[in-house]
Amino acid sequence: MPAITKQPGHSDSFPFELVRPHLELVEVAIREQVRAFDPMVEPYVSYVCNTSGKRIRPALAVLTGGALGEANEDHRKIGVILELIHMATLVHDDIIDGASTRRMVPTANAKWGNGLSVLLGDALFSHALTLATDFDSIDICRKVGHAAREVCQGEIMQTQRRFDLTLTKDEYFQIMEMKTGALFAAAAGLAAKLSGASEEVEKRMYDYGLRLGAVYQIYDDCLDLVGVEETVGKTLRTDLEKGKLTLPILNLLESASDAQRMKLTARIINQQPLDLPVLVGIAEYEGAVERAIDTAKDLLGQCHDDLSVLPDNESSQALHQIARFLGSLLEKCRR
Amino acid sequence: MPAITKQPGHSDSFPFELVRPHLELVEVAIREQVRAFDPMVEPYVSYVCNTSGKRIRPALAVLTGGALGEANEDHRKIGVILELIHMATLVHDDIIDGASTRRMVPTANAKWGNGLSVLLGDALFSHALTLATDFDSIDICRKVGHAAREVCQGEIMQTQRRFDLTLTKDEYFQIMEMKTGALFAAAAGLAAKLSGASEEVEKRMYDYGLRLGAVYQIYDDCLDLVGVEETVGKTLRTDLEKGKLTLPILNLLESASDAQRMKLTARIINQQPLDLPVLVGIAEYEGAVERAIDTAKDLLGQCHDDLSVLPDNESSQALHQIARFLGSLLEKCRR
Repeated sequence: MPAITKQPGHSDSFPFELVRPHLELVEVAIREQVRAFDPMVEPYVSYVCNTSGKRIRPALAVLTGGALGEANEDHRKIGVILELIHMATLVHDDIIDGASTRRMVPTANAKWGNGLSVLLGDALFSHALTLATDFDSIDICRKVGHAAREVCQGEIMQTQRRFDLTLTKDEYFQIMEMKTGALFAAAAGLAAKLSGASEEVEKRMYDYGLRLGAVYQIYDDCLDLVGVEETVGKTLRTDLEKGKLTLPILNLLESASDAQRMKLTARIINQQPLDLPVLVGIAEYEGAVERAIDTAKDLLGQCHDDLSVLPDNESSQALHQIARFLGSLLEKCRR
Repeated sequence: MPAITKQPGHSDSFPFELVRPHLELVEVAIREQVRAFDPMVEPYVSYVCNTSGKRIRPALAVLTGGALGEANEDHRKIGVILELIHMATLVHDDIIDGASTRRMVPTANAKWGNGLSVLLGDALFSHALTLATDFDSIDICRKVGHAAREVCQGEIMQTQRRFDLTLTKDEYFQIMEMKTGALFAAAAGLAAKLSGASEEVEKRMYDYGLRLGAVYQIYDDCLDLVGVEETVGKTLRTDLEKGKLTLPILNLLESASDAQRMKLTARIINQQPLDLPVLVGIAEYEGAVERAIDTAKDLLGQCHDDLSVLPDNESSQALHQIARFLGSLLEKCRR
């Protein structure tokens, strides 16, 4: 296997230059929300807000707003709300995974234990949903609540289907759309709504977000298999150990002969002897990673189609650019 | 110490006879909500819904509706929403406390582990907040979200102040109102609003719920000290071990001499040697439990005052009866 020198990480180089000033205002707005908590609770919330994220959801909201006229406070606000929900899920994810660091700093559970972290996630969650009522639009509240519910249900389904080799690709895509797509979709879709866009445009932006979220997740799946830890900056090759059936593995199972499937099943379910480098090698040899990348790139093509409803301007170009950027990250996973 | 033969438990004999038919419809509505979850998730939600609760929050909503005219589907619905939030907090509480049984059946975390239980609580939570948008009233969504946020923040504050002997009584009451009062208050207050009551009536019903919630919590505090496990049906004398400073203990600390306070501090903070029966004996001897009961009964008096805004009918009498019932449970904690 050739050494990969340029390997994609969860890069901070998302093409968000255009919205940098907006994202700075988003940070200010997030700090403001932190102060809305009781003084006894605030330090915990503050820690979580300071240690997480690329702010992809706010960026999608602000760029959609910009593409459809002008990004304003409402677009930043919906971005903040969805980002708070995202942060709540990260806090809870870290409990579930027993993770002790995220982005090089201790997780909330590592610092204060699982109990406080469960509650901290809940507080962020309920605050975000309350903040959504500021819009005085029941439809926005409903869609924010729906997105939050999708994320939670997606996470449950993923947890529940660990080590379950009957998982179909359709189910896989459903889980990815719920887990990651729902908040991306809400960011782009609700931003369009806030710009007064037609239902058709709102729907297409929603779909753009949903697909982009699924692609982001597929990229994460491929990275876990073929990435280089030093470059990526996090522990890799953990998905299979946790029983998470990713798209490359589903591809491998799909194309396996009966005898091969039996071998794979034994390796995945019994964990032992699970020689991960060998399994990765097989997955690549059989083109299972390639096919996952192809699937993701098809979805990115649909993302570009979705964006065709937007006028051509700097912001809509930046939304295309995000899709292209994800495409280039995926390409780097090919060997 | 004399043996107590008639000892209050978390009795199922709340005076809810009048609303029994409504509460049966509430159960039907809860089951209906269970079916709204993805089929993969539904069995977990169903388990939690089947194993929890006296449905106090729905009862308060339905009785308030009845007192102000007629209890209808809306009153039951707000009851269901608040009950789902309550259930979500119970699922998360059981994780935090490491509880393995609740109401004689295994907790969600005991059955499926902490990870799935974190997510299950989140799913219930987000579903409840989404369901609130059915009312098409931003004000109701806001108040439901606010109540959920109060509960979470109250729980964080309680967790954070464990073993903290600087906790004041004001802070204690604030935590009790947030933790238990907020949902009771939302149940009675929002039910009044749904009946088209004036803001004044809504506010008084909100206050009734807030105080009733605080009393319920004080009763729980006293019970933990003086209750008999066999009668109460749950493990008692755990509050102090967990560092939870309850009202009787705060009373004891307040009236202690400097020397006594030093002894108490050493016992509570160092845990060892914490001879609980002796501490309970001291608390009773010093009248610390008595004074907690007196405080709770004062609050119940204010509850009755709050209810004076209601017309005199069967339902408003039942709301008085709930306050009287809690009073009688408290009286049984006197020795």
